[in-house]
Amino acid sequence: MVNETQLSCSASSSSRSDGSSSGGESSKDNSRCSTPVLDADRHERLREKMRRRQDAGDKWFSLEFFPPRTANAAVNLISRFDRMGAGGPLFIDVTWHPAGDPGSDKETSSMIIANTAVNYCGLETILHMTCCNQTKDDITGHLQKAKRLGLKNIMALRGDPAGEEWEEEVDGFNHAVDLVKHIRSEFDDYFDICVAGYPKGHPEAESYEADLRHLKEKVFAGADFIITQLFFRPETFLRFMKDCQAIGITCPIIPGIFPIQGYHSLRQLVKLSKLEVPQEIKDVIEPIKDNDAAIRNYGVELAVSMCRELLDSGMVHGLHFYTLNREVATTEVLKRLGIWKEDPRRPLPWAVSAHPKRRVEDVRPIFWASRPKSYIYRTQEWDDFPNGRWGNSSSPAFGELKDYYLFYLKSKSPREELLKMWGEELTGEESVFEVFTCYITGEPNRNGYKVTCMPWNDDPLATETNLLKDQLEKVNRRGILTINSQPNINGKPSTDPIVGWGPSGGYVFQKAYLEFFTSSEIVTALLKVLKKYELRVNYHIVNVKGQNITNAPDLQPNAVTWGIFPGREIIQPTVVDPVSFLSWKDEAFALWIEQWAKLYEEESPSRMIIQYIHDNYYLVNLVDNDFPLENCLWQVVEDTFELLN
Amino acid sequence: MVNETQLSCSASSSSRSDGSSSGGESSKDNSRCSTPVLDADRHERLREKMRRRQDAGDKWFSLEFFPPRTANAAVNLISRFDRMGAGGPLFIDVTWHPAGDPGSDKETSSMIIANTAVNYCGLETILHMTCCNQTKDDITGHLQKAKRLGLKNIMALRGDPAGEEWEEEVDGFNHAVDLVKHIRSEFDDYFDICVAGYPKGHPEAESYEADLRHLKEKVFAGADFIITQLFFRPETFLRFMKDCQAIGITCPIIPGIFPIQGYHSLRQLVKLSKLEVPQEIKDVIEPIKDNDAAIRNYGVELAVSMCRELLDSGMVHGLHFYTLNREVATTEVLKRLGIWKEDPRRPLPWAVSAHPKRRVEDVRPIFWASRPKSYIYRTQEWDDFPNGRWGNSSSPAFGELKDYYLFYLKSKSPREELLKMWGEELTGEESVFEVFTCYITGEPNRNGYKVTCMPWNDDPLATETNLLKDQLEKVNRRGILTINSQPNINGKPSTDPIVGWGPSGGYVFQKAYLEFFTSSEIVTALLKVLKKYELRVNYHIVNVKGQNITNAPDLQPNAVTWGIFPGREIIQPTVVDPVSFLSWKDEAFALWIEQWAKLYEEESPSRMIIQYIHDNYYLVNLVDNDFPLENCLWQVVEDTFELLN
Repeated sequence: MVNETQLSCSASSSSRSDGSSSGGESSKDNSRCSTPVLDADRHERLREKMRRRQDAGDKWFSLEFFPPRTANAAVNLISRFDRMGAGGPLFIDVTWHPAGDPGSDKETSSMIIANTAVNYCGLETILHMTCCNQTKDDITGHLQKAKRLGLKNIMALRGDPAGEEWEEEVDGFNHAVDLVKHIRSEFDDYFDICVAGYPKGHPEAESYEADLRHLKEKVFAGADFIITQLFFRPETFLRFMKDCQAIGITCPIIPGIFPIQGYHSLRQLVKLSKLEVPQEIKDVIEPIKDNDAAIRNYGVELAVSMCRELLDSGMVHGLHFYTLNREVATTEVLKRLGIWKEDPRRPLPWAVSAHPKRRVEDVRPIFWASRPKSYIYRTQEWDDFPNGRWGNSSSPAFGELKDYYLFYLKSKSPREELLKMWGEELTGEESVFEVFTCYITGEPNRNGYKVTCMPWNDDPLATETNLLKDQLEKVNRRGILTINSQPNINGKPSTDPIVGWGPSGGYVFQKAYLEFFTSSEIVTALLKVLKKYELRVNYHIVNVKGQNITNAPDLQPNAVTWGIFPGREIIQPTVVDPVSFLSWKDEAFALWIEQWAKLYEEESPSRMIIQYIHDNYYLVNLVDNDFPLENCLWQVVEDTFELLN
Repeated sequence: MVNETQLSCSASSSSRSDGSSSGGESSKDNSRCSTPVLDADRHERLREKMRRRQDAGDKWFSLEFFPPRTANAAVNLISRFDRMGAGGPLFIDVTWHPAGDPGSDKETSSMIIANTAVNYCGLETILHMTCCNQTKDDITGHLQKAKRLGLKNIMALRGDPAGEEWEEEVDGFNHAVDLVKHIRSEFDDYFDICVAGYPKGHPEAESYEADLRHLKEKVFAGADFIITQLFFRPETFLRFMKDCQAIGITCPIIPGIFPIQGYHSLRQLVKLSKLEVPQEIKDVIEPIKDNDAAIRNYGVELAVSMCRELLDSGMVHGLHFYTLNREVATTEVLKRLGIWKEDPRRPLPWAVSAHPKRRVEDVRPIFWASRPKSYIYRTQEWDDFPNGRWGNSSSPAFGELKDYYLFYLKSKSPREELLKMWGEELTGEESVFEVFTCYITGEPNRNGYKVTCMPWNDDPLATETNLLKDQLEKVNRRGILTINSQPNINGKPSTDPIVGWGPSGGYVFQKAYLEFFTSSEIVTALLKVLKKYELRVNYHIVNVKGQNITNAPDLQPNAVTWGIFPGREIIQPTVVDPVSFLSWKDEAFALWIEQWAKLYEEESPSRMIIQYIHDNYYLVNLVDNDFPLENCLWQVVEDTFELLN
């Protein structure tokens, strides 16, 4: 019999033939469960993504940021990452300033900011690294740490010499090429390496030609692509690119774009980079130097026209933006170029992380839905991530609630604002009910302030939760203090703007979910009511001490969100997992104290009210398993109130 | 903060608290993907099942068989396993006859029959094993082989001495207790061990009391439960049981029930077991000894009344039946006792195997749907089984098509019958179309014979496929020779008698699937039509040489059956896997030759027609991904025929 297995042709150009099988082996690879490829990006390294985009004729952009000076600035920068990440940069990069302790564990260090971008914001990230005046051990240490944190790309730079007069060290790192060689010799092919190109030649180079030869050396030592210093005229870049190609540099060369955003920042940058601003630009700027808006408008105009010329040349596929940590000008340029691609469609219902270990991750507990960064933080030590199933064979160990971790618990709003929203003075549990109710309705509280965030939700109500608004309002008013919920969905298209996710052509489903804090009195009534719904509703009810009541069969996880897609296995990205729930409850209860109670003086009545709720309320979650029928959870709550009356 | 995790109480009695988590560990167990517990039975060992049934007050039964003499008898016995397995025995057992080479690889050996029962029929099975006149190495070898094959239970027996006069060997295996000790010392707690009890005392024992002491020795050496020799009066067993308990035997004791089925078999058994038939039974039987039916009726009556008395005593929870490899009498007794529990509900859409390695298995390719035993055979060397997802990270290696394997390819019907069904003489491809069509319609063929099986389906059309009967008839008539298909299902209750599976309270789903052989002419037209359905229909088209055309994204598997259940993760038990399809096509094409062509003389026109189809036709599978809409695959086929006209 013919027993030859052959994949000789494939009608689809995207099909790879690496799946072909031969009958020779008698056992299979251990890792049977792999993630269905929902998003090719998650599985490629940066240089491959770049190549693929270029081959497909897609134009792309990237964004450069510097590390912030203060913890508050870090919180701001991270929310900027989230907002600018929405435009679809191919990568971002974070600069390295030896004076700022860039490799440390401080929340403001280059290392930790890059770590946050990759792991918490899901952005492909390049970490800059300089080498002069540093020991080999230091550099290796930084690289090892970067690798450990999941960083995959390094921009290898010489850095600025410490003193005015700089002398090469024998056997030291004197040039970027030394760092490139070191990375390749110590880390093989692990990192993608980027190096800097100088369209006008490096200011310290003997000549433009000598600098081109240095660049070639860096590439031949193992760099994967080049990002250039800023320049003011498109022809500067295009000539540079041709000159590079002429001497045999074939890797991608990405122009560095600097949208002029103000008179002073321009002057400072020019001074640092030892570049000269062309006369025609000076002529425009000098007369308007005190009008920030006018300069920015001009800068945007100039950048757009330069970028257009570069893209039209056919030689440029991606643009690198020096953002100076600002959003407006760069976003404007990108939108006008038409390469800002805000895609409301999500590959999964939650934001994915770019850490290589998390490539396969496609299941998470629903509890951290509004706190994805906290979830990533608390699971960072995991060696592998749930994929396909959450499973109930092992006890997931969540990182503990430590002080450092409070960085990620911190609200974006300052104390005064929080007090205005949540009440300068609480008069009883009812005033807490009111805060929850105002958050749901969007109506101002009794002092006229809108409640736009809660300790468990740093953002206004999600569009999806809005679907449940009326019912949520009703129950919060009566002391069912909801912190997480989703409606049931019985097969909506995966492209649905509100509940859709994953590739098009699929269908998404959900079981109705409701999670809330409530008093022990209500819990007692609720438990009686739940007996009637025993076969339909799964529940977990726990207090801060860990007393736990559940009807989950064998403590198995319950899938509450899933999607069916053409040609793929089933994806079930969210589950209610009884075991993780007990880790989540620690965090959920802690937020009462850390974010709310601590706004008030110790021993103050307001603080004691929150402390009372923390000590005595229960955290409850309910799942209605009958997703094709009308959500029964509102009836459960209604029955509970009726029983109480 | 309180960070203590505690599962202090659970509302559900079935909840186990072994899932509780403590925050101490920083990484998780590797095996994240575990099977949701659909069927507790799959995860328990026999003694635990027995205990659980007893605790729950459920009565159960078990069935004893002896190994067959011929390969044909083996095929019959295996289909008897399937039929009697449907009644829900707690286990079956297979006897051991040293003279019949019981540990060999012959298809008739005790070892291979028990292997088939466990792995292919999914039955919990006890393999008998005797020890006298055997070397320690032989016995260890048998036990190792049993373990390797997935057998988990041994009935430890002395066996009958070889000669008339038997002498104990020094250091040899002289008693069953020696075998029990040997198993426990060599295999620790791996096997559940059963031993024999003699309600009237072993015929060779010094006394009834001495025999009880021997039994106690066996139990204390490590036996888990006792099955008794047959007896004729319930009080015999009940007294025996009380005597056992009186001397401290506390393990389960299962009465061996022998429904009298005929005069001669009774005489023979009595002779072998050295038992005496009570006078009141002799009095009834002697006058009717030539009337088989009358004896069987009496035997059933007698067994039913004895079993009732045993069960009513409250001391008996399970009944063990000596079937003599016959079905009627035992089934009748069980039905009359009300413990024959034919449960049409399936834990998964396919028959699960009882091999311990396969406990987690819950995903299979759809291709072997009508040939589950072949699938199990071809994957027996796998070390772990798909669970949660099929995955596309590794190439599953299927066992090759070997001669021995043809045992499982063999049809239950003899050659003459197959010729009557499939045609003594074929006149062209159209006569093959006719055979397929008759199989679908159930109408007799032109010679008046019904076609009740096909090389790819050894049984009549499945109830589920019947839903598609009219359309299948139409397309088979025109040369779309279907061998596997399922309708689309958009959320039917899991208790649906036709398409349901899994626990109650759930919903099952399917994508429409169609698999067929067809000519290259039709394939050419089909491919043109499929362009119109590119986003909706996935296809794989392959010929015997392995030329393969597909639009499967990245060769990923496509889930075509899935179920959503209360409190559980999603189950997706069937996938269309592009890689396995190429292994299946070898088998599917081979069946044309091995089962059909070889019915005819070499060089005969009939044989050449089948050979032509085998060499030139394509095997096609189609999946309609849009499961909530009306199945479009019939339209695809219709469009294809239209294009051809």
